[in-house]
Amino acid sequence: MILDGVIMRGLLESVIENNMPYTKDGKVASYIPLLSSANPDHLGICVTTLEGKEYSAGDCEVKFTMQSISKVISLMVAMLDKGTKNVFSRVGMEPTGDGFNSIVNLEVRNYNKPFNPMINAGAIVTCSLIEGENVEEKFQKVLSFTRKITGNDSIDINQGVYLSEKNTGDRNRALAYFMKGNGILQGNVDDVLEVYFKQCSMEVCCRDISRIAAMLANDGVLPWSGERVISREVSRIVKTIMVTCGMYDESGEFAVHIGIPAKSGVGGGIMASVPKRMGIGVFGPSLDEKGNSIAGIKMLQELSKELDLSIF
Amino acid sequence: MILDGVIMRGLLESVIENNMPYTKDGKVASYIPLLSSANPDHLGICVTTLEGKEYSAGDCEVKFTMQSISKVISLMVAMLDKGTKNVFSRVGMEPTGDGFNSIVNLEVRNYNKPFNPMINAGAIVTCSLIEGENVEEKFQKVLSFTRKITGNDSIDINQGVYLSEKNTGDRNRALAYFMKGNGILQGNVDDVLEVYFKQCSMEVCCRDISRIAAMLANDGVLPWSGERVISREVSRIVKTIMVTCGMYDESGEFAVHIGIPAKSGVGGGIMASVPKRMGIGVFGPSLDEKGNSIAGIKMLQELSKELDLSIF
Amino acid sequence: MILDGVIMRGLLESVIENNMPYTKDGKVASYIPLLSSANPDHLGICVTTLEGKEYSAGDCEVKFTMQSISKVISLMVAMLDKGTKNVFSRVGMEPTGDGFNSIVNLEVRNYNKPFNPMINAGAIVTCSLIEGENVEEKFQKVLSFTRKITGNDSIDINQGVYLSEKNTGDRNRALAYFMKGNGILQGNVDDVLEVYFKQCSMEVCCRDISRIAAMLANDGVLPWSGERVISREVSRIVKTIMVTCGMYDESGEFAVHIGIPAKSGVGGGIMASVPKRMGIGVFGPSLDEKGNSIAGIKMLQELSKELDLSIF
Amino acid sequence: MILDGVIMRGLLESVIENNMPYTKDGKVASYIPLLSSANPDHLGICVTTLEGKEYSAGDCEVKFTMQSISKVISLMVAMLDKGTKNVFSRVGMEPTGDGFNSIVNLEVRNYNKPFNPMINAGAIVTCSLIEGENVEEKFQKVLSFTRKITGNDSIDINQGVYLSEKNTGDRNRALAYFMKGNGILQGNVDDVLEVYFKQCSMEVCCRDISRIAAMLANDGVLPWSGERVISREVSRIVKTIMVTCGMYDESGEFAVHIGIPAKSGVGGGIMASVPKRMGIGVFGPSLDEKGNSIAGIKMLQELSKELDLSIF
Repeated sequence: MILDGVIMRGLLESVIENNMPYTKDGKVASYIPLLSSANPDHLGICVTTLEGKEYSAGDCEVKFTMQSISKVISLMVAMLDKGTKNVFSRVGMEPTGDGFNSIVNLEVRNYNKPFNPMINAGAIVTCSLIEGENVEEKFQKVLSFTRKITGNDSIDINQGVYLSEKNTGDRNRALAYFMKGNGILQGNVDDVLEVYFKQCSMEVCCRDISRIAAMLANDGVLPWSGERVISREVSRIVKTIMVTCGMYDESGEFAVHIGIPAKSGVGGGIMASVPKRMGIGVFGPSLDEKGNSIAGIKMLQELSKELDLSIF
Repeated sequence: MILDGVIMRGLLESVIENNMPYTKDGKVASYIPLLSSANPDHLGICVTTLEGKEYSAGDCEVKFTMQSISKVISLMVAMLDKGTKNVFSRVGMEPTGDGFNSIVNLEVRNYNKPFNPMINAGAIVTCSLIEGENVEEKFQKVLSFTRKITGNDSIDINQGVYLSEKNTGDRNRALAYFMKGNGILQGNVDDVLEVYFKQCSMEVCCRDISRIAAMLANDGVLPWSGERVISREVSRIVKTIMVTCGMYDESGEFAVHIGIPAKSGVGGGIMASVPKRMGIGVFGPSLDEKGNSIAGIKMLQELSKELDLSIF
Repeated sequence: MILDGVIMRGLLESVIENNMPYTKDGKVASYIPLLSSANPDHLGICVTTLEGKEYSAGDCEVKFTMQSISKVISLMVAMLDKGTKNVFSRVGMEPTGDGFNSIVNLEVRNYNKPFNPMINAGAIVTCSLIEGENVEEKFQKVLSFTRKITGNDSIDINQGVYLSEKNTGDRNRALAYFMKGNGILQGNVDDVLEVYFKQCSMEVCCRDISRIAAMLANDGVLPWSGERVISREVSRIVKTIMVTCGMYDESGEFAVHIGIPAKSGVGGGIMASVPKRMGIGVFGPSLDEKGNSIAGIKMLQELSKELDLSIF
Repeated sequence: MILDGVIMRGLLESVIENNMPYTKDGKVASYIPLLSSANPDHLGICVTTLEGKEYSAGDCEVKFTMQSISKVISLMVAMLDKGTKNVFSRVGMEPTGDGFNSIVNLEVRNYNKPFNPMINAGAIVTCSLIEGENVEEKFQKVLSFTRKITGNDSIDINQGVYLSEKNTGDRNRALAYFMKGNGILQGNVDDVLEVYFKQCSMEVCCRDISRIAAMLANDGVLPWSGERVISREVSRIVKTIMVTCGMYDESGEFAVHIGIPAKSGVGGGIMASVPKRMGIGVFGPSLDEKGNSIAGIKMLQELSKELDLSIF
């Protein structure tokens, strides 16, 4: 299907308009003060095609922190640094019915690795696999990679959010020390968490994440430059894990109703990659009970139906 | 890609040959005597295209019992009888890291429905939703539907396996009574399990399941007759759930490495549906630790790579 | 301390009076209709001394079903039939923080026996160990033993409660089939549960259970006849398990605050055995959230304090 | 029973001799290097009567670290500082079937407090309740109290063990941060753990712990000086919790077979308090699978039988 620009812009405008009412149903994240000050009425969408064209509507320039969307970034960086085989010897690729910050299965089933890289325990492990002399070098690698795949050199962390994450990160410390105690996690716990908290705090807008999604949809090649940044295999692995584990405990339902590889964050963003078609970035900080943007999901559902985007 | 018949047949022959050695690595199911008598060296494959053409190699005529593959059948029948909304108000659509016969999450998390229809608890619930005056009528509905979507009127249950399932089905009785006690399951437990045990015991060959898979790949229309048997929506739901939950605790890894919606059974069969491409049925009773045909997975992996079948 | 009869009667009268208000705080058991029709204002107490003297106050003649108190009976009968070593090779003697009808630890930790004989799973196993040609013979053994240790030949089951237990016993069926499937439970599940449901439905009054408790306090010898019915060792095992596991999830708190080996039932009874001192039976069908008689516990607490009955 | 000194000494000598062979069955603790260097052949016992007389045999002067026995100390200090009601609003008094360092129930059941003060999570909470300006002041309170109730001013921490505990304490850090994240634990995690690690590292001998046990047996009064150090109520609470939770996952079996309130530590010590009779300290670093001194338990069993010490 050839996407005519005029039609596309009109479609995105109407998608924003049609789903605006859903922003009233959810709640913005409140576990750290800075997130709770987000404007629940914000709603934005951006589409990046594989030809590098971009269409947007709504609050597509408003910045938000990546939060769990950054787990996709550190997974890619870790695979680039250590190879896929090595990474998946340390973290699994199976979906789990447990919560994103659950510690239970690590204990009860005596697993020697976290279920997958999209739950906190798994993302902490992938952060530990990024190479670098010190914390700063490791995080700079994540940041540089993020800037490259968004084509946006101004991306940086939100210092306030970062400090808040650090101050309230006790559950993540518990996960990390548990894995350290079991030999699952190597390295200094504080250092690993520093990288983790920082990557969660990187600020982006809809356009940025739609570009990352477009690169993934384009099998690892940046649509705007033709540069390959990850292999086709890495790109496929990432998209697959986004389908089975990307939307917290709502991944199965999202796959059935929308059918697009996607990763959400409690900052309100959803990064959705339609293989061989397009990248989509949506933003709406009002969340459902599972932690996903409530109007964001509705917009993706409408777009998936209108453009027949489901991979199934 | 246009599949030339000669090339296809050659490919399937070499796939069988290349992966035969893997049959030595696993073990046939042993929880009931009749399954443990299966010949571990058997290996078969059949492909049904959306044009209705069929290509096969190896032991593609050898019969085996559907076992968990039948969960896909009862899910479709239940959706036809009760509607998708109604069915999914009683069973979830989320993947779970717990085993197929786990009772834990029903108790610990106090869920009011099983995670998904591919675990035993969920399949028992879908069986309970099939309409009919009595057990016989309900099972006949499952059997008739199976005969229709395979185009094979000779399909029937293996009486010996059925009786064995019934004799050794205490864990499933536990699941059913647990759900009955919690109000999740309605109706007579023995009756519901009768349908469940019977559907697990339906005997098929690779060709039969490749045809069901082709119908799903064809969005609900039988390739050989053009008859629509389920709606496009039902077909999409089924394929999605096969991706996230179809291969027991190995679903995530299967999705990453192979990327085809599939459902396996401990009888040794795997039914794999490549959307808009083809249906594939493989059979190899030697299982890996998760309960999936060990050489069957390897064959699908080779085929997926050769023909670029991954949906991701 | 020598218990003067007049003082004792006065003490019991005031205990009833002082704690009557607590009957307003709880709720009668409601999982079966017949239990929910109990009068929440009932409150009775009976003390049987090691010399065979009996003192009572309140509704000490009102009948109620033993429910979980019967688990002590079947444990004694099983030990008489099979020996303590044999019994405890099939059921543990450790307290558990899980609920009385939990199935989790049987699955998750893959235990080969239930934690202890006071949770449902454990009591079902002890019932399975009672010897007899058939269900009727086995239950008659339990009933005869109960009549003997209460000195009350008129004890029988409440037919209505028994049928209700049977009708609503799905959770217990789940436990039994789970254990059958795991090889923990032997024999026919329906038969074992028949004995279990029947023993739960035996009707007693405060006096009856105070006599059983007195026999236990007297190291296995009936105070009124001098007849030894169980060995000193069996008597000690029973009392120990009552301390660690007798009061559901409140056993620890009961031990700290009251310090008397005791077993409660959702029928409202509590059987408390003060080693070398006396047996106490209390009855009050209004239960706290854990399933223990709310005013019954308060009465035992007052009595324990007044008479210095704690074993600690 | 009046304990004749000559008889008592002979009894203890033969208890050591009879149970020495059991030291060959277990293993010394190995999770930190310094513990693994303990001599598995050591075996000592000391009895302190309520009159302050002491009888000993074997390696009763050999020092070992208190480890989990110190949980009893911090519990007493916390109750002295904050009152029993306050303490038990923050930590439960129920036994649990889970391991001493389990995190599961804190998460799965969403409990707002650890099950009891004898598991690590509970002991960490009691340490956090000890009052003091800083870590040093808090630990000094624990140390001073230990010196007082042992009448031994030379007790101090084993610096090497303390540093090892600190270095390998990741599981305890996980527990503490988990509770911090859930609001169960207040204060600085590192500070609380410092107190915890230090108290575990206090070095004692059999005599020391037999004296603490004698004080508890004497309802809170030091036998040798008549000084009351804790109230009768606190003494009773401690003994009760020792019965239900003192011997790790073996508490129920220990209660049945031996029937004495006791607390063990992986350093090889067991502190056993026979109410109104005596305190007993045993030491044998060879442990069974649950973490209890294997020959130590056997010695207590023989002594309990010989002197009829069971409280049941």
